[in-house]
Amino acid sequence: MASPKLTTSQIENQISDLSGWTVQDEKLHKQYQFNSFVEAFGFMSSVALVAESMNHHPDWSNVYNRVTIDLNTHDSGGISSLDFEFAKRADEIAG
Amino acid sequence: MASPKLTTSQIENQISDLSGWTVQDEKLHKQYQFNSFVEAFGFMSSVALVAESMNHHPDWSNVYNRVTIDLNTHDSGGISSLDFEFAKRADEIAG
Amino acid sequence: MASPKLTTSQIENQISDLSGWTVQDEKLHKQYQFNSFVEAFGFMSSVALVAESMNHHPDWSNVYNRVTIDLNTHDSGGISSLDFEFAKRADEIAG
Amino acid sequence: MASPKLTTSQIENQISDLSGWTVQDEKLHKQYQFNSFVEAFGFMSSVALVAESMNHHPDWSNVYNRVTIDLNTHDSGGISSLDFEFAKRADEIAG
Repeated sequence: MASPKLTTSQIENQISDLSGWTVQDEKLHKQYQFNSFVEAFGFMSSVALVAESMNHHPDWSNVYNRVTIDLNTHDSGGISSLDFEFAKRADEIAG
Repeated sequence: MASPKLTTSQIENQISDLSGWTVQDEKLHKQYQFNSFVEAFGFMSSVALVAESMNHHPDWSNVYNRVTIDLNTHDSGGISSLDFEFAKRADEIAG
Repeated sequence: MASPKLTTSQIENQISDLSGWTVQDEKLHKQYQFNSFVEAFGFMSSVALVAESMNHHPDWSNVYNRVTIDLNTHDSGGISSLDFEFAKRADEIAG
Repeated sequence: MASPKLTTSQIENQISDLSGWTVQDEKLHKQYQFNSFVEAFGFMSSVALVAESMNHHPDWSNVYNRVTIDLNTHDSGGISSLDFEFAKRADEIAG
């Protein structure tokens, strides 16, 4: 019942609607940069709430004011529409 | 060595530079409203980092998309310049 | 379709299984005390994730190492089983 | 005025007092595992408060219930006593 894995052309089509996202190692990838660790971690806290409520958890990392997010859907074996929904919500939070 | 308690006229003067802050029960008081709990808690996480780094912790509450902050300086027996510094940083985070 | 409001005897029965929870102003109420603000806010961050994923948000406040939580279910007009579920999860996080 | 870079023998000596920490790529390295994302992110929120108050920010990542932390002191060009202080505080929070 997993969200189906998207094809390369579906991914290319959907990624063109987003800003700053690329595909790396078969994952949706973006690096955000903020003004400070305080802003970066506030962003992460909001995104964590979205992740838990979607039950869809990112592979992400932080160094000071930078947050890197990598998304794929384990049960689908690739990138699914869930990852694009997550990406959009993260972008909305980043503002 | 506590930051000295400000006089009523000093408080009135400094509060006029801020937006949305009032004095209630001898504390600097403001209610913030966000679009969602996700945004409200992201704000709280950033503010918590500021609080810990200033070693100055607010009396604050949250219901869904609203966050209420009350500030005074226990060691000063009232409102001090620390509270105004905190208020400004919270406003910057709220953006 | 809201979780139905519990009767006084149902509440008394369920609250007896919990530790530290009382009824105040028709809400489930508890004050937690931690060793530091750092621990208190870590608890709040975990509880915030639970709140968002249950779509059930507490009325809560924090001062330094203390966190106070009040729970009721607006759509039910009182305390419902959702509030008890939330209370149990908060207690588990507090450890 | 940076905390001086520790020598290899100083690092080996201090790391022997800790549990689970190793040196990887000239950084203090540990992977924590929790029972859930909820617990993992609560840990991260507490650690973020310590990081900001120490003005010493980790290189860290999270996937679901795992948190990986890498520490060094940029201004010292290696691992310093600040990194060991940070490691101890993270271990205390993990409990």
